[in-house]
Amino acid sequence: MFNAKIKSEIIKGIIDVTSPLVNEAKFNITSKGISIRAVDPAHVAMVDLELKSTAFEEYKADDMELGIDLDKLNGIMKLANTGDSITMEYDEESNRLIVKIGNLIRRMGLIDTAGMPDSKVPHLDLPAKAVVRASELSKGVRASEAVSDHLALSVDKDSFELFAEGDTDTVNLKLPKSLLLELHAPGKFKSLFSIDYFSNMIKPVKNEDPITINIGNDNPIRVDFDFAEKHGHVTYLLAPRIESE
Amino acid sequence: MFNAKIKSEIIKGIIDVTSPLVNEAKFNITSKGISIRAVDPAHVAMVDLELKSTAFEEYKADDMELGIDLDKLNGIMKLANTGDSITMEYDEESNRLIVKIGNLIRRMGLIDTAGMPDSKVPHLDLPAKAVVRASELSKGVRASEAVSDHLALSVDKDSFELFAEGDTDTVNLKLPKSLLLELHAPGKFKSLFSIDYFSNMIKPVKNEDPITINIGNDNPIRVDFDFAEKHGHVTYLLAPRIESE
Amino acid sequence: MFNAKIKSEIIKGIIDVTSPLVNEAKFNITSKGISIRAVDPAHVAMVDLELKSTAFEEYKADDMELGIDLDKLNGIMKLANTGDSITMEYDEESNRLIVKIGNLIRRMGLIDTAGMPDSKVPHLDLPAKAVVRASELSKGVRASEAVSDHLALSVDKDSFELFAEGDTDTVNLKLPKSLLLELHAPGKFKSLFSIDYFSNMIKPVKNEDPITINIGNDNPIRVDFDFAEKHGHVTYLLAPRIESE
Repeated sequence: MFNAKIKSEIIKGIIDVTSPLVNEAKFNITSKGISIRAVDPAHVAMVDLELKSTAFEEYKADDMELGIDLDKLNGIMKLANTGDSITMEYDEESNRLIVKIGNLIRRMGLIDTAGMPDSKVPHLDLPAKAVVRASELSKGVRASEAVSDHLALSVDKDSFELFAEGDTDTVNLKLPKSLLLELHAPGKFKSLFSIDYFSNMIKPVKNEDPITINIGNDNPIRVDFDFAEKHGHVTYLLAPRIESE
Repeated sequence: MFNAKIKSEIIKGIIDVTSPLVNEAKFNITSKGISIRAVDPAHVAMVDLELKSTAFEEYKADDMELGIDLDKLNGIMKLANTGDSITMEYDEESNRLIVKIGNLIRRMGLIDTAGMPDSKVPHLDLPAKAVVRASELSKGVRASEAVSDHLALSVDKDSFELFAEGDTDTVNLKLPKSLLLELHAPGKFKSLFSIDYFSNMIKPVKNEDPITINIGNDNPIRVDFDFAEKHGHVTYLLAPRIESE
Repeated sequence: MFNAKIKSEIIKGIIDVTSPLVNEAKFNITSKGISIRAVDPAHVAMVDLELKSTAFEEYKADDMELGIDLDKLNGIMKLANTGDSITMEYDEESNRLIVKIGNLIRRMGLIDTAGMPDSKVPHLDLPAKAVVRASELSKGVRASEAVSDHLALSVDKDSFELFAEGDTDTVNLKLPKSLLLELHAPGKFKSLFSIDYFSNMIKPVKNEDPITINIGNDNPIRVDFDFAEKHGHVTYLLAPRIESE
């Protein structure tokens, strides 16, 4: 059994977070909420999303897995206006997800989850941590896109830094401790990442909302942020690009 | 003689209604107003539009036919701002329509109406009628576009219903009598239509404005609505798609 | 030395004015301000732009020339929000322009100015002058684009006129003296111009702002307007199209 009512924006938020990595996702449903874990086809990035049952206006669920076409679900959410609540219900007999938006009933076919692997979140020992405002970070990323396809992130005890270098041009964003929400770094740590992936990872976070970055040396990065008024949480992992010299 | 002054939005409304069916239209002008009747090239849909002289700020006209390129007229209307009045005058000597927008004078070539047939509105005996709000109907149509290229409309004594079915997905919009502005149905009536055509027909009606639907069994549908603050009226006829079983 | 602070909108304005003619421009920098003079590759139009040091919040400069890729500078300006001040600094050692937007530092490669010719503004004896509001003129130009690729501008002692003629359609915009901000014409003067070029020249001027037009008979036109709250001035010259009859 799965029967839930929620603001359409929150479902749109789930799609924004997962769809840059995968077209289809396995929604793991329990009595406590929904979680999604997905790895992109190139195995460069992983998303781990949790949405608690407290994010819902109504929520009743047994344990189950639903295989969902994210594009299709996105199209359905576009039928709802901002502020509209929708209901979602699993119909076991027909193996369909029934979405109700006002007087509209949309029955959606599901994807077999048998072919969808269960990814494990690898344990990472990342020594440094910085909490940055989304607006600052996204300005740095947009600037970097014009000069290169990869960027370096580094953290030391005084600042968080983003750096990108092209043939003739460079981008440098240095945020001193005073402009960070949090900073912890026992030394200097630096890794290189694909701008495309990193840009998609931070895009769902808006304005002055905080993004937590955990980083090591030539190690994956871990990016964390909340959504759905803290009833939801997202963790991204992104593999580093190793500088060939 | 044809010499008229009118808000540019009303002319834009005429174009919105007729241009989905035809690129060129014959404007039938009399002392009482303007009417347009047009059939699409595939002979699936017909539009019958009337705009009374009372919709105009100034109106003087003898009987005449003007063959108008709708794309061109649309381009001219885009030069006017919302709320601007424009004047239109037929210049017999040059066979041009002279459109004035503020200080701008635009002389537009006309199309020979000899090749444009006079369509007759077929008599249809459609037993059921429902009056629906545009916003509800257009949400149902948008949802249907994602699952199929045709939809079924049905009316019985209790409700109006829209249904579309794809390989795995369905759309169902059921509006009970309490949500309809009017309902009259001596039995159950149902016909199937092309979503493309039906979507274009209701697109010009906005928000909570009423759309009148007359329907039979596997018969054409008749869609009626007012525009230009009830000085104008539109009737669409759309042929059914017959279900092959 | 070049070290300046200015609102990003003013730099965007410079780009809007020069980029329709050239992709790369030579910024001539002196203690009094910045000037740019550029001719389009077809040698049909010239722009002559001056921005006084008083337009800047801070300004310190020795004489120098900076070769700038306008597309790249435009991309950098898009990183700034409306109202943001940016600083620009020439770094002699690396031959880079350093642009600072908040905490972001963008180092931009420069183009060798050796291949960029110094254009002289030709002396033109244009007897007639009209000062027109941008909104009126741009409506006439947009209407003309639909019927032809060239338009005629004419001035006499009573009015300013714009005229374009296609196979079947014409556009006529006649502004009597009462609708002009200024009019001076010892006789009637008329020249023909490319709509594409003329459209780009007046596009940066918005709403009711004045555009000064100096015109002769089958002679280039000179278009003048201010920007940056009159701390900047633009002169365009546009060669006429000679009517072949």
